[in-house]
Amino acid sequence: MQKYRLFAPGPTPVSEATSLAMAQPLIHHRTQAFEKVLEEVRGGLKWLFQTSQEVLIFASSGSGAMEGAITNLLSKGDKAIVVNGGKFGERWGKICQAYGVLVDEVKVEWGQAVSPQVIADRLKKGGGYKAVFFQASESSTGVYHPVKEIAALTRGHPETLCVVDAISALGAMNLPMDEWGVDVLVGGSQKAFGLPPGLAFAALSVKAWGHAEKGTLPRFYFDFKKENKSLQKNQTAYTPAVSLLIGLAEVLRRFREEGLENLFNRHARLAKAMRAAMQALGLKLYAEKSPVNSLTAVMTPEGVDGQKVYKTLSEKYNMTIAGGQDQAKGKIFRIAHLGYFDDLDVVLAVAAVEWALADQGYRVEFGKGVAAAMEVLRS
Amino acid sequence: MQKYRLFAPGPTPVSEATSLAMAQPLIHHRTQAFEKVLEEVRGGLKWLFQTSQEVLIFASSGSGAMEGAITNLLSKGDKAIVVNGGKFGERWGKICQAYGVLVDEVKVEWGQAVSPQVIADRLKKGGGYKAVFFQASESSTGVYHPVKEIAALTRGHPETLCVVDAISALGAMNLPMDEWGVDVLVGGSQKAFGLPPGLAFAALSVKAWGHAEKGTLPRFYFDFKKENKSLQKNQTAYTPAVSLLIGLAEVLRRFREEGLENLFNRHARLAKAMRAAMQALGLKLYAEKSPVNSLTAVMTPEGVDGQKVYKTLSEKYNMTIAGGQDQAKGKIFRIAHLGYFDDLDVVLAVAAVEWALADQGYRVEFGKGVAAAMEVLRS
Repeated sequence: MQKYRLFAPGPTPVSEATSLAMAQPLIHHRTQAFEKVLEEVRGGLKWLFQTSQEVLIFASSGSGAMEGAITNLLSKGDKAIVVNGGKFGERWGKICQAYGVLVDEVKVEWGQAVSPQVIADRLKKGGGYKAVFFQASESSTGVYHPVKEIAALTRGHPETLCVVDAISALGAMNLPMDEWGVDVLVGGSQKAFGLPPGLAFAALSVKAWGHAEKGTLPRFYFDFKKENKSLQKNQTAYTPAVSLLIGLAEVLRRFREEGLENLFNRHARLAKAMRAAMQALGLKLYAEKSPVNSLTAVMTPEGVDGQKVYKTLSEKYNMTIAGGQDQAKGKIFRIAHLGYFDDLDVVLAVAAVEWALADQGYRVEFGKGVAAAMEVLRS
Repeated sequence: MQKYRLFAPGPTPVSEATSLAMAQPLIHHRTQAFEKVLEEVRGGLKWLFQTSQEVLIFASSGSGAMEGAITNLLSKGDKAIVVNGGKFGERWGKICQAYGVLVDEVKVEWGQAVSPQVIADRLKKGGGYKAVFFQASESSTGVYHPVKEIAALTRGHPETLCVVDAISALGAMNLPMDEWGVDVLVGGSQKAFGLPPGLAFAALSVKAWGHAEKGTLPRFYFDFKKENKSLQKNQTAYTPAVSLLIGLAEVLRRFREEGLENLFNRHARLAKAMRAAMQALGLKLYAEKSPVNSLTAVMTPEGVDGQKVYKTLSEKYNMTIAGGQDQAKGKIFRIAHLGYFDDLDVVLAVAAVEWALADQGYRVEFGKGVAAAMEVLRS
């Protein structure tokens, strides 16, 4: 027997309690029972997003809400800064292009975080940028981009919004939207929430809602104003993903019991343990200077193919992690610890990685990474 | 004790087997296990859509795929015929408007089906229409629009596509897409599939794929060509709604066991029984001439408020049906029998409606509707 274990940066494991909640007989969305669910979810999301604004909910994957963050706030020919330091930064650019938004790209070396100074310089040039698009957590590299610092910059530019794809960071790292002045925060169900994929979220600041009054790009399904109007009546504009929302209510209840600080601390501790373990094994971190707490991107040692580590874990140990993408393919593997994870999950994951590295001919002193993780988790 | 019973035209009940399938530990979408699921789903959908073309799958509600059917096939300023005889016909028009497609609306009285002759006349005028948009089943009125006849008309116009929202008809009625020459067939998970909401489908004819090469409207998340390209590699462009797809595989397996003909016949029989029951109670059908087999829209008798029938069923009998919308509000109630329904479900639903009508002061000879349904179901 070999259990299936999911350590990919999304989808992440769903807890038994959440699965059972979603397996209950389906209810209709125009019922008091569902309205109670939606009300609870709306309150819970505001709490998690740390905002007084409504958090919009869409039946889609995260990219849908990213698209909405462009089509609802900008107009054709508008200029925007896009931070591109990985696959998801690239996606911001592609959506902008699809809608005729002019992109001023800030290229960032993979594995590095963007320097706020670069953003500051561009903004100072006065290009009339309508937005700065970037990731809180760039899942393809494991990098955390400095959300607080960039939000502090756009605050001084009434025309420029700070739009953050926080899909794989939300819930795992502290992103107090209102306090920092983030204008749009985008999330997805299949990350720290530990839900199946199929829900996307977006919250807008007062400043962003102002832009939403002016944006002229076409949109229909991802219409933020329409969705917001419906939510004010505790309804959704289109048939909501009922079962996922029932699961979400259960997850948010658990998050509230854990508390925001504990939630972030748990992710920080797990990430710290994983990083210590990999370093104890003599491996380098891909995002050395600014790693996220959602996942750890690890550089494979000389002579070891990252894709083979990933495949061995899958084929020999029934564990899904992630390999590298594009230019990082073969050079790294990525192991996630966001959502429904505890200390011993990290311990067992490190053990499996040790075996998989040894299988590739890398000299591993078994238990060395595990011990390093255990030390961190114990303290 | 009073069990919750769902007889709304979507979402519809989810079978216990489907719920259990979806409650299994979540797997990653880049695994062999998921690829097997996707392959099975792709084959099953082609079989159900009765097409040799790929059926595209989106994580969204049905409206998302409707939007895609416009943004992928048309360009700004294109002209299209929209059949508007209810809430969902209206939606085609709204999406066209949002994207600058010029709408030539065919207004149809609520409760009536569109006459193919009207469409033929418009097409003959030679307006250069790029598409005719309509519903197979207009859920707001319970009307079936003549898909086969309209498809036969557009076949003679190489520039004009036959685009059918079959969200609440697919699986309940025979819609042989390839045979009839339907160009786009749109579906959704929460109808005859008996799945929770969150998946939308769209299949395109060769003719429609040709239009997809020329359409210049902007799109990103609902990009048909990109999704099709991914599916050819047995992958999805964005993170798919994994759990719903696992449920879908289970449903399609059951559909295949039942067989297409039996599936349609079952829905036809249930619908016939429900109609007979309502008429036996002295009630008139809203879609008298061309009713769908997915749901039955019933006109309430003089002095009885349709909304009260709907509310009584909800509050007193814990059963969700649907009331009327807009101009039909108060005048009708709608009871669905699509998806996971058998003969005795219809019997119990009729009994509940009899009670609810009596509660409104309507003279009901208890069991009269039930008996009529039973007679039909027995034959």
